[in-house]
Amino acid sequence: MYEEIKQAIRDIPDFPQKGILFKDITTALKDKRCFRQIIDAFCDVLQSESIDKIAAIESRGYLIGAPLAYKLGCGLVLLRKPGKLPAATIKEYYDLEYGKAALEVHQDAISAGERILVVDDLLATGGTAEAACKLIKRLKGEIAAMAFLIELSDLGGAEKLRPHAKTISLLKY
Amino acid sequence: MYEEIKQAIRDIPDFPQKGILFKDITTALKDKRCFRQIIDAFCDVLQSESIDKIAAIESRGYLIGAPLAYKLGCGLVLLRKPGKLPAATIKEYYDLEYGKAALEVHQDAISAGERILVVDDLLATGGTAEAACKLIKRLKGEIAAMAFLIELSDLGGAEKLRPHAKTISLLKY
Repeated sequence: MYEEIKQAIRDIPDFPQKGILFKDITTALKDKRCFRQIIDAFCDVLQSESIDKIAAIESRGYLIGAPLAYKLGCGLVLLRKPGKLPAATIKEYYDLEYGKAALEVHQDAISAGERILVVDDLLATGGTAEAACKLIKRLKGEIAAMAFLIELSDLGGAEKLRPHAKTISLLKY
Repeated sequence: MYEEIKQAIRDIPDFPQKGILFKDITTALKDKRCFRQIIDAFCDVLQSESIDKIAAIESRGYLIGAPLAYKLGCGLVLLRKPGKLPAATIKEYYDLEYGKAALEVHQDAISAGERILVVDDLLATGGTAEAACKLIKRLKGEIAAMAFLIELSDLGGAEKLRPHAKTISLLKY
């Protein structure tokens, strides 16, 4: 399934660090047919979900989260690296596959009880997405699901995220 | 025109530096009706243009460029800060409203003769967008137009970009 999308994604060895085989989605995005297939495939899978807002993780999460929010008729919330959001924020730290980082969200981005879909391009160890979940829960949002274009199954991200919400991955490696 | 969108954008004083009045579009994006209006308004304006690919400037340009590419049926190309793109790139430096920076694009992102729409959230002095134009021209792409959600008219960006292509700004301040 989604064989055409899978073939359009290329592997880049040793990026951003030695030993990492980076999945480069830019080759899929620049192909108009492939880009459309990606967004439409997510819409098909998510059709039955009740979603108020999409929380997209900076910055590749925006590439999928923004068109999805448009197509599904949701609001779009940004989960950004520290110091990028201009108004009052809350922050969560997390361990990355390669290093340590943090994620912020505007305190007024989500209202209590809103159903949120978290979107990112890639699920690896699940650290970033878990930080996203914690931020959303601190704002009293409900996590409808977490959607990823690519899941690197061996890294255990889906298991780590299971206590928070279900994960939907279009492509598994 | 677009009064509802304009009202949804908030001013944040002294961000990211003292003396800058930052236009925060996150309040417009999180409102599903407003977000839809923004994308639909761009589609109306761009309907008659012949566009092969949208080149979106990292990272707020993605928020508008990605849904637009989906809606208009174009491919999506990323113009990123240095070191973010994994394959072979070309680079252009530019002066920013507050500092100095550079933009990169994958060498294989654009084919000769393709018509490219450059998209970003904000047009200030035009430095970033001009670097985008130079990158696209080096790859022998044709710039169909440059589209911005917000133009800060007093900073002369539109004049600076005039030799490269026409600019389309939804909101002017």
